[in-house]
Amino acid sequence: MKKSLLKKYADAIVRVGANVQKGQHVKINASVEIADFVKLVTEAAYKAGAKKVYVDWSFDELTKLHYRYQPVSVMSKVPKWQEEKLAEEVEVIPCRIVLLSDDPDGLKGVNLEKMQKVQQAVTAVTKKYRDALDCKQQWTIAAVPSKAWAKKVFPSLRTSVAVESLWDAILKTVYVSEDADVFAEWNNHNKSFAEKCAILNSYKFDRVEYKSKNGTDFTVWLIPDGKWEGGGEYTLSGQYFNPNMPTEEIFTSPMKGRAEGVVVATKPLCYRGQLIENFKINFKDGKAVSWSAEKGEDLLTKMLTFDEGASMLGELALIPHDSPINNLGILFYETLFDENASCHIAMGSGFTNLIENYEKYTIDELHEKGINDSMIHVDFMIGSDDMNIKGYTKGGECIEIFRDGNWAI
Amino acid sequence: MKKSLLKKYADAIVRVGANVQKGQHVKINASVEIADFVKLVTEAAYKAGAKKVYVDWSFDELTKLHYRYQPVSVMSKVPKWQEEKLAEEVEVIPCRIVLLSDDPDGLKGVNLEKMQKVQQAVTAVTKKYRDALDCKQQWTIAAVPSKAWAKKVFPSLRTSVAVESLWDAILKTVYVSEDADVFAEWNNHNKSFAEKCAILNSYKFDRVEYKSKNGTDFTVWLIPDGKWEGGGEYTLSGQYFNPNMPTEEIFTSPMKGRAEGVVVATKPLCYRGQLIENFKINFKDGKAVSWSAEKGEDLLTKMLTFDEGASMLGELALIPHDSPINNLGILFYETLFDENASCHIAMGSGFTNLIENYEKYTIDELHEKGINDSMIHVDFMIGSDDMNIKGYTKGGECIEIFRDGNWAI
Repeated sequence: MKKSLLKKYADAIVRVGANVQKGQHVKINASVEIADFVKLVTEAAYKAGAKKVYVDWSFDELTKLHYRYQPVSVMSKVPKWQEEKLAEEVEVIPCRIVLLSDDPDGLKGVNLEKMQKVQQAVTAVTKKYRDALDCKQQWTIAAVPSKAWAKKVFPSLRTSVAVESLWDAILKTVYVSEDADVFAEWNNHNKSFAEKCAILNSYKFDRVEYKSKNGTDFTVWLIPDGKWEGGGEYTLSGQYFNPNMPTEEIFTSPMKGRAEGVVVATKPLCYRGQLIENFKINFKDGKAVSWSAEKGEDLLTKMLTFDEGASMLGELALIPHDSPINNLGILFYETLFDENASCHIAMGSGFTNLIENYEKYTIDELHEKGINDSMIHVDFMIGSDDMNIKGYTKGGECIEIFRDGNWAI
Repeated sequence: MKKSLLKKYADAIVRVGANVQKGQHVKINASVEIADFVKLVTEAAYKAGAKKVYVDWSFDELTKLHYRYQPVSVMSKVPKWQEEKLAEEVEVIPCRIVLLSDDPDGLKGVNLEKMQKVQQAVTAVTKKYRDALDCKQQWTIAAVPSKAWAKKVFPSLRTSVAVESLWDAILKTVYVSEDADVFAEWNNHNKSFAEKCAILNSYKFDRVEYKSKNGTDFTVWLIPDGKWEGGGEYTLSGQYFNPNMPTEEIFTSPMKGRAEGVVVATKPLCYRGQLIENFKINFKDGKAVSWSAEKGEDLLTKMLTFDEGASMLGELALIPHDSPINNLGILFYETLFDENASCHIAMGSGFTNLIENYEKYTIDELHEKGINDSMIHVDFMIGSDDMNIKGYTKGGECIEIFRDGNWAI
C-alpha cells in the first residue's frame, strides 16, 4: 500500500478515532507483526501533541506457547507490576489505540478450558482498572492486515496480493483515499447517525422484535431510560472520539433478563482467537438456555458460561443489510468489520453510558437499572436480507424499524 | 537459513548460553523485527523447563521517535510500575537472554546530549536493581541478523543474501552447524580457556604493557587479588552459564586510576546506536584525559564523561589476532563480534566477580579494592597484527603474553 495512504490512515486513527489531544499519553496495543504501521501511528500521535506514546506488543505465536507450556496457576497470576501499570493508567488516562491484525484463527489449538480459567482469573484482577477508565478514556479500534489474516480473507490470492486487497477493503470502510477529506467524511457520517438516533429515541420503545426466514424469532425488552447511540462518543470530560473505525452501527443496551426466542447467527464469530460457525442460541427469561453450533460448539459453551452475565445480552445493534461494508461482499472474519456489515447482538456486559444522565448514577445503580455486567462482551451477527425488526411502544404502537434487512424509518 | 539450524542455535542460546534450569523464569530482550526467532528461543526455553518466558520488546524506529518528540523530563521519569518490575526480577532472578539484531547505526540522528541526560537519569534509578542481580543471574548475549544490520555488514549484497551471509557468519562463530555437537564444542572451548587463565593467573602480574606500530603505547596496573577469566562463568549459587555467544576473550578488570599512555582503536565502535570511528584516547593517572575521533568525536566525549567512572577502565581483554572470528574477515559493526575478534579494553564499570573470593566482600569493598564503578561499560577494540603485550610481575620479571598479535604463552 502507498506510504502516503498509510500515513493518512494512521493520522485518521489518531485524530478522528482516539482524537488525541495535546499533552495526552497514548497507549497502543498491537502485534509485533505490524511494527512498521505502529511506527506511523506513533509518529502521528506525537504530531497531534501526545506527551508520551507507548506500545503493549503482542504476538499470537508466543501466546500459543505460553498456553502450551505454562500451568494455569502461573498464567493466572497477574504480577504486581502489571497491576501497578494499570493503576497508573487509571491516574493518567491515556488514549488507547487498539490495532487489530491477528489471524482470526491464530490461537487455534489452544486448550479452551485452560484459556477460560486464565482469562477469568486475570480479568478478576484487572476488571476494576478497566471499569475505572470507563467513560473517561478516549479509545479507538482499527485494523491492519497481517499476512495470515489477509490469506484467510482472500485464500485464493498470493500473500502479497491478499495483503494489498485487504488494505484496499479496510481503507474503503474508513473513508481513507488519495483525495478524500477524512475529517469531513467522518463528520457527515456521524451527523447522519445522530439524526437516526434522535428518531429511534423519540419512540421510547418498550421492546423490539426480530424475525427472519432463517429461524430468528426473538423479542427483547429495552431499559426505560436507555438510549440508542451510534458513531462518535463523548468522554465524561467532554472529549469526542470514534471508538470504532469503521462503524456503521446504531446500538443500545437492552434490559438484562428480558429476552425470549431464538437467534440464528449469520456470520462466523471469532472468539479468543478461534472460530465458531453456524450457530444459534435460544433465550428464555433473558438468558441463553440452549445453543448449538456446527463448528466450535464447545467454544460457544465456554463463552456463554464464562460468568453469570455472559448468558445475558449487553447490546443490540442495527446495521442495514446494504451497509457499505456488507456491500464490499467480503467476509472479514473480524468482528470489527463483520459486526458493521450486519445487525448484531452481544453477549455479556452492556454500556453504562447508554442510560440517560448516566453520570449521575453509581455503576451499581446503572446495573440495577438493567445494564448487564460481565467480564466478556462478544458481538455476533444476526442480520440477513429478509430481517424484519419492529419496535413496540409502551402504548402498544408498532413501528417498523427494519424491513427486509434495511432501515424502514 | 534452514529452520533446523535456527532451532539448533535457539537451543544453544537457551542450554549453553543462559543454561536455563527447570522452574526458572526467562526474560528475553529483543527487537520486534526478529519476532520469528524469538518464538524459537521461547519454545526452546520452555522445553528446557522454564516456568515462564516473557519478552521485553524494543524497536529502534520508535526509540528514535520518542527521542525526537518527548522532552527529557518525560523520558527521564521511570514509571513506578517499571521499578516494581525490576524489583520483582530481583526477587525471582530470571535468566536473561539478550538477542542483538539492531542496525549498528540505527539510532543515528538522535540528539546525543538528550540521550545522555535520559540514560543518566534512568540508570540512576535502575542501577540498584541491576547491581542486586549481579553475580546471581544467568545471562547470555547472542545475535540475530536484522535486514539493516546485514546490509551494513555486506553492503554490496542483495538484502536477502546479506541476511543469509550474516546468519552463516554468526552460526560459525558459535559452533552451530548441521552435524556439530554444540555442547561438546563449547565444553572443549571452555576447557582450553580455563587452562590459559590458570597460566596467566599463576604470574600474578603487577602491570601489563601494550605496544603496536599504530601508536598504542600503554601500561595498565592490575589488582593484586584480581583474576583473569574467560568462557563460561558461575553464578553465586553455582550455576554455570556462558554470558557471550560467541566468546574468544580472556579478560580481567584492572586497577582503577592506574593507567598511562595512548591507546588507538582498531575498529569502529557502536555506542548508543551510533558509530565512532578511528579514535584514540590518552590516559594519565588511570583516566582518559584527551581523545580524538575522525567520526563521532562528540559521541566519544559524551561516552567518556557520562559519569566519573566512565573515564576509567573496567576491563582488559586478550584475543589473538588469528581468532576464529577475526579470521572470518568480516567487520560486524557489533561489539559482541568485533570485541571477540581483537584485543579490547572497556571504559566504565569493571567486574566485581573477578576479585578472588568476591562473595566474601561487600560491593563497596570490591570497589575499594580497585574495581571501577560506572553506569556504563563500553568495549572498544585495540588489537592489531603487530600488537605486543608484556606482563610484569611484582618481582620485576617480564613475561611475553602476546607477540605480533597472537598468544606468546
